[in-house]
Amino acid sequence: MKAFASDNTSGVHPQILTALVHVNAGHAQSYGIDETTEDMNCLFKNTFSKTTEVFLVFNGTAANVLGLSATLRSHEGVICGDSSHLVLDECGAPEKWLGSKLFITPTHQGKLRVADIEKHLIRRGDQHYSQPRVVSITQPTELGTTYTPQEMKEISALCKKHGLYFHVDGARLANAAAFLNCELKEITCDVGVDVLSFGGTKNGLLNVEAVVFFNPDLATHFKFNRKQGMQLASKHRFLSAQFASYLQNKLWREIAMHTHGLAKILENELKNIPEVEIIAPVESNAVFAKVPKRLIHPLKKDFFFYVWDENTNTVRWMVTFDHTERDIQNFVAAIKKHLNS
Amino acid sequence: MKAFASDNTSGVHPQILTALVHVNAGHAQSYGIDETTEDMNCLFKNTFSKTTEVFLVFNGTAANVLGLSATLRSHEGVICGDSSHLVLDECGAPEKWLGSKLFITPTHQGKLRVADIEKHLIRRGDQHYSQPRVVSITQPTELGTTYTPQEMKEISALCKKHGLYFHVDGARLANAAAFLNCELKEITCDVGVDVLSFGGTKNGLLNVEAVVFFNPDLATHFKFNRKQGMQLASKHRFLSAQFASYLQNKLWREIAMHTHGLAKILENELKNIPEVEIIAPVESNAVFAKVPKRLIHPLKKDFFFYVWDENTNTVRWMVTFDHTERDIQNFVAAIKKHLNS
Amino acid sequence: MKAFASDNTSGVHPQILTALVHVNAGHAQSYGIDETTEDMNCLFKNTFSKTTEVFLVFNGTAANVLGLSATLRSHEGVICGDSSHLVLDECGAPEKWLGSKLFITPTHQGKLRVADIEKHLIRRGDQHYSQPRVVSITQPTELGTTYTPQEMKEISALCKKHGLYFHVDGARLANAAAFLNCELKEITCDVGVDVLSFGGTKNGLLNVEAVVFFNPDLATHFKFNRKQGMQLASKHRFLSAQFASYLQNKLWREIAMHTHGLAKILENELKNIPEVEIIAPVESNAVFAKVPKRLIHPLKKDFFFYVWDENTNTVRWMVTFDHTERDIQNFVAAIKKHLNS
Amino acid sequence: MKAFASDNTSGVHPQILTALVHVNAGHAQSYGIDETTEDMNCLFKNTFSKTTEVFLVFNGTAANVLGLSATLRSHEGVICGDSSHLVLDECGAPEKWLGSKLFITPTHQGKLRVADIEKHLIRRGDQHYSQPRVVSITQPTELGTTYTPQEMKEISALCKKHGLYFHVDGARLANAAAFLNCELKEITCDVGVDVLSFGGTKNGLLNVEAVVFFNPDLATHFKFNRKQGMQLASKHRFLSAQFASYLQNKLWREIAMHTHGLAKILENELKNIPEVEIIAPVESNAVFAKVPKRLIHPLKKDFFFYVWDENTNTVRWMVTFDHTERDIQNFVAAIKKHLNS
Repeated sequence: MKAFASDNTSGVHPQILTALVHVNAGHAQSYGIDETTEDMNCLFKNTFSKTTEVFLVFNGTAANVLGLSATLRSHEGVICGDSSHLVLDECGAPEKWLGSKLFITPTHQGKLRVADIEKHLIRRGDQHYSQPRVVSITQPTELGTTYTPQEMKEISALCKKHGLYFHVDGARLANAAAFLNCELKEITCDVGVDVLSFGGTKNGLLNVEAVVFFNPDLATHFKFNRKQGMQLASKHRFLSAQFASYLQNKLWREIAMHTHGLAKILENELKNIPEVEIIAPVESNAVFAKVPKRLIHPLKKDFFFYVWDENTNTVRWMVTFDHTERDIQNFVAAIKKHLNS
Repeated sequence: MKAFASDNTSGVHPQILTALVHVNAGHAQSYGIDETTEDMNCLFKNTFSKTTEVFLVFNGTAANVLGLSATLRSHEGVICGDSSHLVLDECGAPEKWLGSKLFITPTHQGKLRVADIEKHLIRRGDQHYSQPRVVSITQPTELGTTYTPQEMKEISALCKKHGLYFHVDGARLANAAAFLNCELKEITCDVGVDVLSFGGTKNGLLNVEAVVFFNPDLATHFKFNRKQGMQLASKHRFLSAQFASYLQNKLWREIAMHTHGLAKILENELKNIPEVEIIAPVESNAVFAKVPKRLIHPLKKDFFFYVWDENTNTVRWMVTFDHTERDIQNFVAAIKKHLNS
Repeated sequence: MKAFASDNTSGVHPQILTALVHVNAGHAQSYGIDETTEDMNCLFKNTFSKTTEVFLVFNGTAANVLGLSATLRSHEGVICGDSSHLVLDECGAPEKWLGSKLFITPTHQGKLRVADIEKHLIRRGDQHYSQPRVVSITQPTELGTTYTPQEMKEISALCKKHGLYFHVDGARLANAAAFLNCELKEITCDVGVDVLSFGGTKNGLLNVEAVVFFNPDLATHFKFNRKQGMQLASKHRFLSAQFASYLQNKLWREIAMHTHGLAKILENELKNIPEVEIIAPVESNAVFAKVPKRLIHPLKKDFFFYVWDENTNTVRWMVTFDHTERDIQNFVAAIKKHLNS
Repeated sequence: MKAFASDNTSGVHPQILTALVHVNAGHAQSYGIDETTEDMNCLFKNTFSKTTEVFLVFNGTAANVLGLSATLRSHEGVICGDSSHLVLDECGAPEKWLGSKLFITPTHQGKLRVADIEKHLIRRGDQHYSQPRVVSITQPTELGTTYTPQEMKEISALCKKHGLYFHVDGARLANAAAFLNCELKEITCDVGVDVLSFGGTKNGLLNVEAVVFFNPDLATHFKFNRKQGMQLASKHRFLSAQFASYLQNKLWREIAMHTHGLAKILENELKNIPEVEIIAPVESNAVFAKVPKRLIHPLKKDFFFYVWDENTNTVRWMVTFDHTERDIQNFVAAIKKHLNS
């Protein structure tokens, strides 16, 4: 049975696997000095902007932490949401690597609001106080909601006004662009983002993420940051080949449309079940719902998933690329069965 | 044309690729809570010892630095060779992550000697002086030479005597065991090693290395170290499947015997060329040679490789799993051609 | 005119200055290997407990950060109050030095409550989540309130139950003991504290604080922590002589009783001024009050002080050792004058 | 009996003590916002150059490490001598705080030579290799020798050529200027130094050193570095008053001339003792000598000092401000007595 736990319980998308097999022929220079990487760099420039610089790393924690390391000094800090991966799920990697303070900010349906960001902009220049230097948002959010380009522009304007950088944790960025029916650039470089963690793994790739700089000044030293950050791959072409395949023909959109479509089907089915309450708009490939406590244990035995909040019996159900409409129907049937038994 | 630059210019060994394709079926829990990882853990215990604990990471720098992090505090230091990867090729990752001092020690044909290690054991307990806490050797060395089990036992005895841990950078450990015609355990847990970086990538695997603890006390907190160290893979089964395949049926030995055999053929051919001087015993899959300066440039155009020491025109030629005897013969023919032209 | 800004706007207490002049005679070994330091160590053992270990450092930030460094690893974190010096006034020193997460906790009148601490004790053993390891409280609090010994025992019991260490930021500990009319040990080692930052500077000493371990296991490596933490004084006897003089004849209590007494006089006078609202019990040498905005600027010109919260016009008035009752009366007269003009 | 162990076994110079007593009157704002600090800043600008920026810290380790932190990123490193305090006597503080590699360089009579520095300037731009970014010398050296202004200019020229900063550990800088009979500026800003650790403690001050920037760009963020580095004094005026007194009327030179003069007397006396061999030119306040092993133990009982090298029975004898010519004569008499007994 397929899980609904996370988009990383599935494996590698068939097209990506084909790319991996294909790139395995012959020898190539290691550490990113190879043709596949060169081609991938071009695809990033075409997809985003001509000044885009991209560096591949192995996972999302590294993409976030190393990307942020290019934006601040240790006496400066990161304004980020209370539900962000940076705060909750990286085991203190930001503090250890950056030596910086995280300014934890309340979120509304997963999103940071300008007014809440502004509250941190105090004691500017006070030597006793860590100085906010970068705002980090997650797009789509950890709650599956999506910032509109307009909302991103407002945050970007605030950043420019106060001399802050703008970072996006885009572990599932493709899902946001698919939901918004826009290009990737329209929710990144076009709205003033400086650094992006562009996720691959959660949308069908194998242990690879991209740190993308739209502000090329920030990229100056990054090859050293990545190496010192223990994230330089020797057989780098196997990372590059995946992202090349992902951007080529917009495979990212194809996968994300598929998972969003199924998430909406799941949402619609759930709306008909009175005991299940969906708690956030379904704007990517996740459904968050409050359910009766008696449902959780038996359902989990068939379909593994995570309880998001034990106090409220809120669960997270993630759709992944290899789910089918039949998987959704089976899942809904199981929910109904367990609720009625 | 195949390169002789490094054992990571080749791709993934066919059996490993098969394992990757095979493990791609269906869903599995992420972050190492899966059956493939469980099986791999058993294989490590069978290969090394019952108390062995293993944690997979993405590359050798991470394996070294995080493995060492389990052995020392920031005011303690690492005794290591002047030619070690830790000192020369990790862009300061040890200093940044550990906050510790490296005690750089001269090597003889790549090897640390007991007498040189002992010279660092001064000022014990002096609060002004970083305290040596762990000895790190590379097996086989960066110069392609191999410590005998007896040599390792002597270092281990010194460590025990002075309360030091014993770490091995085994990025090419399989090559050492193949050369010594011994089991992996005979040059690790059986001779008193506490922590091992066990390399996969340089012997045919894809961006994966293992941190192996023979002293299980050192492993207590390591799952947190790995996560905070930004080295926890979400699609972890793809790492585990590789090492499982590698240990199963001793694929590691098959590959390492092949590359060592070819390196010896290369050595024998080179011995007949008076202008080429082999500078270190060929005890793994590398040949280090002093060559006429006029040879380097034209030969490199056909077969990429690295100059090891520009002052002495010393080059490093590495054999990798997909080289054939014909590749060696072609390479030797090219050397002869360029020397005679 | 004397300020009411902080207890560090005053200089050195006359008895401390005498001690400094006295210890200046002749030569003594540096770095704490001297008789004055030996005597001071004995005084600490007599004042607190026989197993007490003490290390002097230069300021409160160092005492807090280095003291905490003995209690946790970088993947572990500190539970501390939202108004704590650790969070607000150390410019990210805890994050930089410890590499650890601070778990920011709401406070009530400056105090942490057991129920709020408990909320952080989630995801124990989850490798993605920084693990709480130590609870840090400030005694007296940043708001001038004081934990009773019973309140401290409750926190200590919680710590023991969950395997947490108990740290006290006692930058003004003498003031708490004076208010509670108890011995220093009754609010430290006797109630289960493991590590204490024992302040000197804010009670009449010159740039010196003590890191005090009641759990001697935590002190094992601390001489190295202090040196690597850049806090080992070469002319150490000048630090030791101050604390020796401070503990001898309980100078600490004499000073703290004096400042508390004056703070109570100030409080009583202010109670008669309707426009001034005291917002927290006066339990040390500070008075926090909401005042009319029009008062702040003219009063500050005569007597420097800090606005605690600009939004509510809350001010902090600190009494220091060299204030006299006449100073208080002059200050109150000025308040009345400015309010009535 | 007075020691000859270090210039920090003596206490505080009488003029400095007077300054401390004098500055103790009344209240002043803390953390360096006071008139005494303002006056001291002016004295530094007058002594060195108009663009000089100065920040006081508590000890030499902090001055070195924090000063260097303004010059480099963690993937960059410091070229420094094998006998430097940074390498041997700071318990790994540079590695911990900077996260940077130290490039250890052989010295000749304590001095770095241009040719040896140049050997580290390899692999520029190679992402695997920590990049040298700053050269640090000690003036006078740990062996009591002194760089001429011309020697410093040569190092400075090398730095400029290769884009390196030039740092001086001047824990005893006054001694170098006294020996060279020059102004402080002639061996710092005038010869291209960027950052200076300017020592006070070893020349009669109390636990205070200055980080001096001649390149003001490097000072931009330093107030935050100092605070996060746990080196901001609250009662800062007591540090400033010392350096003000030290620069005023060139007290630094008076003291350094005195100690150098006595060191020369000691040297001249020792030259007459055949069994004592002076091993380095006496160019500051230190005498390094090889002595018969039988001398060390009995002499140490009367006059504490350090053995510099146990293998060669080399000792270090330091003269300090409160030594008199009679102290020297007594010491020489004791040496003769023990040698002849």
